[in-house]
Order: sequence, then C-alpha cells, then structure tokens
Amino acid sequence: MAAAESPLGWTNLRLTIEYDGTGFHGWQSQCEERTVQGELSRALSTLLGERVVPVASGRTDAGTHALGQVAHAKTRGTIPLHRIHRGLNGLLPPDVAVHRVEAVSDQFHARYDAIAKRYRYRICTDKSALSRNQTWSCFRPLDLEPMRAGASLLVGEHSFAAFCKKDPVPDRFECLVRECEIESVGREVIFEIEANRFLRHMVRIIIGTLVEIGVGRRPASDIPILLAAGDRSQAGPTAPACGLCLMYVSYP
Amino acid sequence: MAAAESPLGWTNLRLTIEYDGTGFHGWQSQCEERTVQGELSRALSTLLGERVVPVASGRTDAGTHALGQVAHAKTRGTIPLHRIHRGLNGLLPPDVAVHRVEAVSDQFHARYDAIAKRYRYRICTDKSALSRNQTWSCFRPLDLEPMRAGASLLVGEHSFAAFCKKDPVPDRFECLVRECEIESVGREVIFEIEANRFLRHMVRIIIGTLVEIGVGRRPASDIPILLAAGDRSQAGPTAPACGLCLMYVSYP
Repeated sequence: MAAAESPLGWTNLRLTIEYDGTGFHGWQSQCEERTVQGELSRALSTLLGERVVPVASGRTDAGTHALGQVAHAKTRGTIPLHRIHRGLNGLLPPDVAVHRVEAVSDQFHARYDAIAKRYRYRICTDKSALSRNQTWSCFRPLDLEPMRAGASLLVGEHSFAAFCKKDPVPDRFECLVRECEIESVGREVIFEIEANRFLRHMVRIIIGTLVEIGVGRRPASDIPILLAAGDRSQAGPTAPACGLCLMYVSYP
Repeated sequence: MAAAESPLGWTNLRLTIEYDGTGFHGWQSQCEERTVQGELSRALSTLLGERVVPVASGRTDAGTHALGQVAHAKTRGTIPLHRIHRGLNGLLPPDVAVHRVEAVSDQFHARYDAIAKRYRYRICTDKSALSRNQTWSCFRPLDLEPMRAGASLLVGEHSFAAFCKKDPVPDRFECLVRECEIESVGREVIFEIEANRFLRHMVRIIIGTLVEIGVGRRPASDIPILLAAGDRSQAGPTAPACGLCLMYVSYP
C-alpha cells in the first residue's frame, strides 16, 4: 500500500526525473509528437492500470534536458513505491529515467509549489563529438571576464521582459535571480543560474546575450540597460536548446 | 605549406581525435560497416585530394569512445594545418571531432611509438538517461573498498593473459600498469587505468572482475591468483563497451 493516502483513497506521487531532450518535442504532451509527459503518462498508466497524467514543475523546450525535473501524479493504485520506481524505469524508454518516487501530501503541486529552479547551460568552444547533444558548439573565443560581469548584473529581482519569448505573454516578468555564475572547465564554458521562476526562453536569451558580450560585440553594461528597457529585440539571440539542462527544482 | 615535410615531399600529420563510439563498428575499417577510420579516411582524402588512410594508436571496440585517440596520416598535400583542422571538422560527421592537427617527423608512428595509454570506464549505479551511451548501468550496490583493493593489486608489470580475449592471440601478455584508480562521483563509479599497453578487452574484463568483487561475489585477493594463473575463464565477464573511453595516448 502506498503511503500518504488522501481520505478519498488517492495517493499523490512526487517523481524526480532525468531526460535526454534530444529525441523529444519538449515536456508537454502534443498530439502526434513524442514528449516526456506523453512517455511518462503511458508508463504510469500501464503500471497503475488507470489513466495518469503527470504535472511537471514547468515545461522544457524541445531539445532541452533535465537531470532533476519534478512532477506529481495522482493514483488510486496501491503498488508499493519501490515497485513503481523500478516498474517505471523498466517501462520508460532509455532516454527517460526516474530517480525518486515519493508519496507526498495530497496538496503538493509540482508547478505551484516550486520556489526555485536551477539551470545549467554548457557551451563548447570547439567541435565536440561526445557531448554534441548537450552543448552549444560556439567556435569563437569567449572572454569570460566581461561575461561574468554581465552575469553578476542579472542577480537580484528584475523584470526580465527583454529576456522572454512573449508567446504567450506571461502575467508578470519579475524574477528573483539568486545566483548566476560562469565557470571554465576544459574546453567548456559552463553557466549556472538559479531563480525563483523563469520565463519562456529566458536562460537561452541570457546566454545569447552573454555570448555577444564574450565575443566583444557589446559591453557587460548593456545588461542593466536591457533589464530597464524590457525590449526583447535589443537582447541577444536565443541560444540553442540543446545546451540547456534543468538541474533541480526546490520546494519549501 | 604544411611544416615538417620529408625530403620526399610527404607530410606526416598527427591527429588527436574524439569520437562517440555509439554509432561505429569500432576504429578499424571493415567493408560495409561504419568505422571511425573509414570516416576519417574519407574526410582526409576529400580534403587532401589523394587517398589517405590514417593509422591509430590502436583499435577501439565497437561502442567504445575516445576523447584523445591519436592517429598519423601521410600526405603529399600542401594545405596549411589550421585549414586541415577546420576542414576535417566540417567534413566529418557530428560524432567525430578532430582536436589537433600537427606536422610531425616522418618517422612518427601512432601505434609503434605510443609509450602509454589511459582509459576511463564509467559505471552508473542507477538508470541514466543523459549518459546512457557512455556508462554501464549496473543496478547492484557496489562496495568500493574491496574494488579499490583489487584495482591496486593490478598495478605493476604482470602477464594479463586472464584479462585478454585471445582472438587473435597476442605476441606477449605482459603489461605495465602505472595507475589504476576508482572514484565515486554522484551516482557514478569512475575507473581509470594507465598502462604502457593494453590487450584486447583487457579493461572490460578487469571491470567485469572488479564489479564481481564490488558486489561481494569474490574477494579482492582473487586478483593476484588470476594474474598468476592466466586463465581467462576464471576472470569476470567482459563489461559492455559503451562505458569505456580512451582518454589519451602518450609519446616520448
């Protein structure tokens, strides 16, 4: 019997999920397209013997990866958690793995309860064979110092309207960026950002802008100007989805 | 004009190559099969306008990767090295990348001159989506202490006949293992070994044997017994090729 059953006989499962986004049209189910939500829903439904649709902390774009996506899914099933965990990994295709299955409060909502997320973006400064689906190969030399200066100017609470694809237009553009760091590891430049929430394409537009700074096409001092103006057309291009990975989602 | 030309007008190119072994039937050219040597030979021949067949430091098995394979290739061409480098990366498929192109002595031979190689083997103790083609997913808990004890007993000069696929039978089984280490990084167990030479399937049979030690099926003290007896049938199974990566090759 699964733990933390609600009075109505439902169990709310919290799943921690890794996926290789290369072969997916993102998280969200779409008719005809292969999606992570679709694969997970199929595996859960087969295993639990009822239609189950998991709800994630947020969508990820086609090609974007996750090491620690979180989703919840409600079931009336009574299969023990360790069997759900093992059963899901057996039923899911090789490019999706479930790392944890927990029974949580009936009230837990993977999207509404999330208080922070962390993303990593990997840029490779040369051609890479082994990490080609997890990095953006950017063949220009990058000057990290101005990129770091630009990244540090993103920390704090700002309107990120300039760093947002407005389709659809979100309720509000404010995000609180807690950390924004750039590291150089071998032939890679690794960017990590943690914030209370993210807008659509936000990390990818930030990367496109920071790379323009790194190649000397614009100064780091453009960042506060972009934040203040809120004009998407003045920021850099949207970097490719394949370099992006959702590292984890935090809850209270 | 390429540097280090021989008196006969040949240039000997030394190439440092990365490849994702997943889509290859190993290094060595075979009719009908896709191989790294075949792809590289085709790209070199197209670029240099003559038939060029690169010779590597050694073959790698189907599915095995390389971050620093080394090959030499002789050409009468006069294209500058940086153009060969860029041209090869453009002509090669996404799963092969050339990191360096150097003009070396006419005498340099990638296989005969190699004095050491280093391999890494990655074991994942859980299902992995993002690194599924670069790790062996081994779902049993591994006790690292006896594995480390076993690994340390491999260091030194020994006959590795027990850790060798004898097809074909090599001239000699002696190898000098300089380093053999096991590290735990997150959900992965990472094994690295450096030796003056390696026999066919040697690292994969060592891993199969160390995993038997790690799950408690045999003691670390079996290692010297196996080395002394030289009987392949007494060692562990051959671990999957996908976990293996040739890190670098050393020359004098």
